[in-house]
Amino acid sequence: MRILLVNPNMSTDMTDTMADIARQIAGPDVDVVPLTATRGFPYIASRAEAQIAGGIALEMIADNLSGVDAVILAAFGDPGLRAARELFDLPVIGMAEAAMMNAAMLGERFSIVTFSPVMRLWYLDCAQDSGLIGRCCGVRTPSSHPADMRDMRTSLRDDVIGLARQAAEEDSADVIILGGAPLAGMAKDIAGDVPAIVIDPIAAAVAQATAMVRITHPASFARRMRKPLAKPSLGLGPALTAIVAGEQWF
Amino acid sequence: MRILLVNPNMSTDMTDTMADIARQIAGPDVDVVPLTATRGFPYIASRAEAQIAGGIALEMIADNLSGVDAVILAAFGDPGLRAARELFDLPVIGMAEAAMMNAAMLGERFSIVTFSPVMRLWYLDCAQDSGLIGRCCGVRTPSSHPADMRDMRTSLRDDVIGLARQAAEEDSADVIILGGAPLAGMAKDIAGDVPAIVIDPIAAAVAQATAMVRITHPASFARRMRKPLAKPSLGLGPALTAIVAGEQWF
Amino acid sequence: MRILLVNPNMSTDMTDTMADIARQIAGPDVDVVPLTATRGFPYIASRAEAQIAGGIALEMIADNLSGVDAVILAAFGDPGLRAARELFDLPVIGMAEAAMMNAAMLGERFSIVTFSPVMRLWYLDCAQDSGLIGRCCGVRTPSSHPADMRDMRTSLRDDVIGLARQAAEEDSADVIILGGAPLAGMAKDIAGDVPAIVIDPIAAAVAQATAMVRITHPASFARRMRKPLAKPSLGLGPALTAIVAGEQWF
Amino acid sequence: MRILLVNPNMSTDMTDTMADIARQIAGPDVDVVPLTATRGFPYIASRAEAQIAGGIALEMIADNLSGVDAVILAAFGDPGLRAARELFDLPVIGMAEAAMMNAAMLGERFSIVTFSPVMRLWYLDCAQDSGLIGRCCGVRTPSSHPADMRDMRTSLRDDVIGLARQAAEEDSADVIILGGAPLAGMAKDIAGDVPAIVIDPIAAAVAQATAMVRITHPASFARRMRKPLAKPSLGLGPALTAIVAGEQWF
Amino acid sequence: MRILLVNPNMSTDMTDTMADIARQIAGPDVDVVPLTATRGFPYIASRAEAQIAGGIALEMIADNLSGVDAVILAAFGDPGLRAARELFDLPVIGMAEAAMMNAAMLGERFSIVTFSPVMRLWYLDCAQDSGLIGRCCGVRTPSSHPADMRDMRTSLRDDVIGLARQAAEEDSADVIILGGAPLAGMAKDIAGDVPAIVIDPIAAAVAQATAMVRITHPASFARRMRKPLAKPSLGLGPALTAIVAGEQWF
Amino acid sequence: MRILLVNPNMSTDMTDTMADIARQIAGPDVDVVPLTATRGFPYIASRAEAQIAGGIALEMIADNLSGVDAVILAAFGDPGLRAARELFDLPVIGMAEAAMMNAAMLGERFSIVTFSPVMRLWYLDCAQDSGLIGRCCGVRTPSSHPADMRDMRTSLRDDVIGLARQAAEEDSADVIILGGAPLAGMAKDIAGDVPAIVIDPIAAAVAQATAMVRITHPASFARRMRKPLAKPSLGLGPALTAIVAGEQWF
Repeated sequence: MRILLVNPNMSTDMTDTMADIARQIAGPDVDVVPLTATRGFPYIASRAEAQIAGGIALEMIADNLSGVDAVILAAFGDPGLRAARELFDLPVIGMAEAAMMNAAMLGERFSIVTFSPVMRLWYLDCAQDSGLIGRCCGVRTPSSHPADMRDMRTSLRDDVIGLARQAAEEDSADVIILGGAPLAGMAKDIAGDVPAIVIDPIAAAVAQATAMVRITHPASFARRMRKPLAKPSLGLGPALTAIVAGEQWF
Repeated sequence: MRILLVNPNMSTDMTDTMADIARQIAGPDVDVVPLTATRGFPYIASRAEAQIAGGIALEMIADNLSGVDAVILAAFGDPGLRAARELFDLPVIGMAEAAMMNAAMLGERFSIVTFSPVMRLWYLDCAQDSGLIGRCCGVRTPSSHPADMRDMRTSLRDDVIGLARQAAEEDSADVIILGGAPLAGMAKDIAGDVPAIVIDPIAAAVAQATAMVRITHPASFARRMRKPLAKPSLGLGPALTAIVAGEQWF
Repeated sequence: MRILLVNPNMSTDMTDTMADIARQIAGPDVDVVPLTATRGFPYIASRAEAQIAGGIALEMIADNLSGVDAVILAAFGDPGLRAARELFDLPVIGMAEAAMMNAAMLGERFSIVTFSPVMRLWYLDCAQDSGLIGRCCGVRTPSSHPADMRDMRTSLRDDVIGLARQAAEEDSADVIILGGAPLAGMAKDIAGDVPAIVIDPIAAAVAQATAMVRITHPASFARRMRKPLAKPSLGLGPALTAIVAGEQWF
Repeated sequence: MRILLVNPNMSTDMTDTMADIARQIAGPDVDVVPLTATRGFPYIASRAEAQIAGGIALEMIADNLSGVDAVILAAFGDPGLRAARELFDLPVIGMAEAAMMNAAMLGERFSIVTFSPVMRLWYLDCAQDSGLIGRCCGVRTPSSHPADMRDMRTSLRDDVIGLARQAAEEDSADVIILGGAPLAGMAKDIAGDVPAIVIDPIAAAVAQATAMVRITHPASFARRMRKPLAKPSLGLGPALTAIVAGEQWF
Repeated sequence: MRILLVNPNMSTDMTDTMADIARQIAGPDVDVVPLTATRGFPYIASRAEAQIAGGIALEMIADNLSGVDAVILAAFGDPGLRAARELFDLPVIGMAEAAMMNAAMLGERFSIVTFSPVMRLWYLDCAQDSGLIGRCCGVRTPSSHPADMRDMRTSLRDDVIGLARQAAEEDSADVIILGGAPLAGMAKDIAGDVPAIVIDPIAAAVAQATAMVRITHPASFARRMRKPLAKPSLGLGPALTAIVAGEQWF
Repeated sequence: MRILLVNPNMSTDMTDTMADIARQIAGPDVDVVPLTATRGFPYIASRAEAQIAGGIALEMIADNLSGVDAVILAAFGDPGLRAARELFDLPVIGMAEAAMMNAAMLGERFSIVTFSPVMRLWYLDCAQDSGLIGRCCGVRTPSSHPADMRDMRTSLRDDVIGLARQAAEEDSADVIILGGAPLAGMAKDIAGDVPAIVIDPIAAAVAQATAMVRITHPASFARRMRKPLAKPSLGLGPALTAIVAGEQWF
């Protein structure tokens, strides 16, 4: 099985961390192919950035589809998720949506803990878009944006534990999602200090991607009635142009 | 990995069919342990039956927890799901909920197709309970209850294809869930005739059970704040009595 | 008129208190028949317990249906309510649902005050299930579970008044429901100290049971299209077995 | 017990029919005091008419409050309900709301059947306002407005039975509400021909009014925090002027 | 263009202030015709008052329709809005609804700031009725009702700035609506001190009224299928009587 | 006043038609500046296309902001709306959202009529995103995609009238929105044949853009707390790069 891990942020460090976790979860039989955006933003934190980065993600997927069984959009907030799912004939998994679906299968209510107040509303919008807002107790964040985006897994450790405890104790969350790529890998560091089930979204996304591949047949995706009509375009990369035009690209 | 497949219906035929599918999806490294209810109902089709069968399922799980990593409630409608999830310190997956979560990760909207109008409202209630009712296009069924519950996979083949096509064409479903244990295994028979992605709930449940085991740590479940308080009881089996009493049973 | 008051908890003290209140509300023309569970739990406080106790309640009802005009499920949280309503051909009233419907007919918004934080989420789920969550301002409780479950009507008096005042002043509740059997009878003790209408759920349930009997015809229940299909079963008591099998038991 | 039955329509025939039913349900111990509007509309069928007739109903109530224990707004659609409930210190019951709350205690889902397509949207708005829209299967009506508003209980009998059967069979309603004063009394005529529980709203309203009186204390209403502030007014009748001004009128 | 500005409160001072703002926004080509209620209440602050004042507003509109292109209901809370919209063949704009629709076109989420806690629930109900409750972050008010209703634009200035800042900072509002006629004109005084877009509802209502006139054709209103049926009435003013009777009044 | 009319489709014909309507509605004092996308798609009909075209629209806006007072996204479906609104310090109006907000101020319920079944789900998603789905009666379309996209205003005239009549008669719509740029200008052609108010979305968008400019102060937009943090980027046009970087571009 071959899974494309598409980081629509320009941070290769983040991609490397996420690819490591992905490989641990996916096991040796799965080929995880990480990609990092070469244009766009260092990290995506707004709808405006997600609008643009989502388009970049579509190009990245189209350019690398050959032999791929599933795609992971490896940015919490899932830029381009619905567009990609509509366009490509294979499972496309978003980190945020996968984490929330998982959380809803593990407990009654989940909370999201993340690294900056800047992300709060966007993540709530993700919960709304997934349909699971009724099972979400909210998003907890530190009170200010971190001065340094590097190495948060260490610098924010105590803060994140505190926020997760509050989510369990005050918001009644059974499950805590650690949202945002900078917290990737942190779930297992802190699980022992949190009275709830803690979820790492990249782990959730990989587990879901492999699950989706196992229970679907590739031909079904091509057979879907509700795909966009084929159409001409101008200015897209050659792979995406062909796919939008309804041509068999691979 | 060891997964308990708990059929709260008394039909061993159904259990056998579901166990076969489960093993195909789970692969050779997973030990699927099927259990069939020895009291209750031949098949569950109402809330009253689900109330009782859900209680029976709790006993079946408690009696067989040793060495188990995850539990599947193998009846569409998920009798006892929330109760089991609250009580036991491991992932508990419901067939209906798993199928709907999967469906929502594969497309915008899903429909459920099942074998009898009798199931319609209960399945809609499941969609409501999961939180995903807003992404559900409805439940399509034959107009009357089947005279013969056996071998529906053959006898209802054409009907189910017709209903699934209507769900895709008229209700705009991207994904079709074949609900109800009697349709287990049918997804792959009919996928080629349906212009949408077709999901087999037992396959979905197994894929989710293995996914949940991979991304969670067993100790987290025991650490949950939101577990029921330990308490005495009368008339339950010894294993369930111990678990309700907060004792370490295994 | 004969009303079955089914306490699915094993506490006869609670049953006695509730039966007294029921008789005061129902008046001399109504025969209130109290029943206490002889297996299950001392008091129900979780979904897991409600799953089991709801099944026990179905047996209790089936065994005592003769000559009965209506049934009250006398545990806030209404274990088995939907199942019983579907199965038996007479009005079945839940304490929580009746209290919330009453509250919604007396004011715009209601709050629930109860004796332990352990009950909070379950009661919110009841409000959700009833359809009236949009008119519910929340559930207020003491910050910890009471050390002694006996005589709360005295020991918690000041706490409950304080919580009810907060619900009126801070949450804008017009009506306060005192949830949970241990608070039965307390409404009239504290009404003078609360700037809102205070409701006793057992009083509400009795008033609703008599109301439902007066405005319905027994034959209508038997005529309902949406009853479960008759079916065989194994392991249920003889009365419940017969009713599930669609036989005329009385 | 003394109950004011306020018909905000100008039809005394309708008032008489409703008062008869009310007395049958209420029994000999309850004094039912019927009032008919002397200005406004022959029957209310729009929001514009309800806006005006609701104001008239407030005057009718204020002028007749002496010795009254509860008020029934005897027009399906409940003109002035929220206003009256806020203003007067006693239970105020609306026919539509009471019928829907009753219906929701008797079954999972209810439908409304009424005499004219003109009423359909207004009744749906009532279901929305009550909070129970999620349990309402819709409003079924004849395809055109009746040429003659008199004696519909006879002339529409077959139509109403047909619509009620459709609501049960096609919309899955467990309970059917016969909406609109012109259908008052019809429930018992047709119950034998409908495979669902049939509810007469005036009967429901009376049963609820007596229930509310039994479970509340009059002083609680006066104690409510959320009453409108006392204020001067111009042009209202003397009784309503006094009540709005926060004076003790009786 | 001629716009009727209907103040259903009896305060001519408020009408004058609102008419000034209306004329500034509308420009010289628009004839703003202010009307003040001559009966009813000094200011409307409850549902009971809105029930009555809404009826008065219908009379005021009917009496002054000649040559009018649009109507503004100039009381936040919009008493009589749905009734007037249904009845009259021209655009009818409510201050609260217009402000919320505007707010929703300027940002993701809006808050309402007003002068008294007494208004809070009514304004939340307006947000609910408009359909935009999901985009409303709440209503912030001073903790007590102002002792003096005059000159709040000066006396409440600092309070309102503080509340608006809290709405932006703590509730994440992009847009702040200053609700209630006493705050009319205040938006531009405080905009520089608030980190969000501040909206004056009377300005919003005027802007919407002129917009609606520009994009609709008067004949379309008369052609609407969903108007109330013509009917006789008793006790209404002659103009309203004629309009209710379906007669051409002008 | 200067309004940018941004057509993110590549069809200059459509832009010309929309600019004509815009100028008629806006009047001589408003400078309407039309822009047509020079890359992307002939017309946008899917989420995938909207993802990409929304990014193109951001570039078009950034490149032409000088002296502009408001922006209209001139494609029904509003690609890039939330992103643009967040990023740019002026009112940004979407055709679909503006039409729905207008419709909700003119009647209780609105329907959308459009030219192809392909658009149906996307338009429903727009209604959902706006918050007004509860007031939307649905989207009606011809049964198949038109063979020729040119001159639909003539070729689809009868179809659109028929669909609009059905929306009024069967779905109870008070207001009909003609969705999709190809139907621009058609509202006035057909209004006389439809028993409801008919809305042209480009007219609605222009009316809203001018309304928003009139009631807001430009400085308020710059002062918003909830703007994205300034950040570096790679590969965007110079204007957009500067704006994303928080620089004063004009």
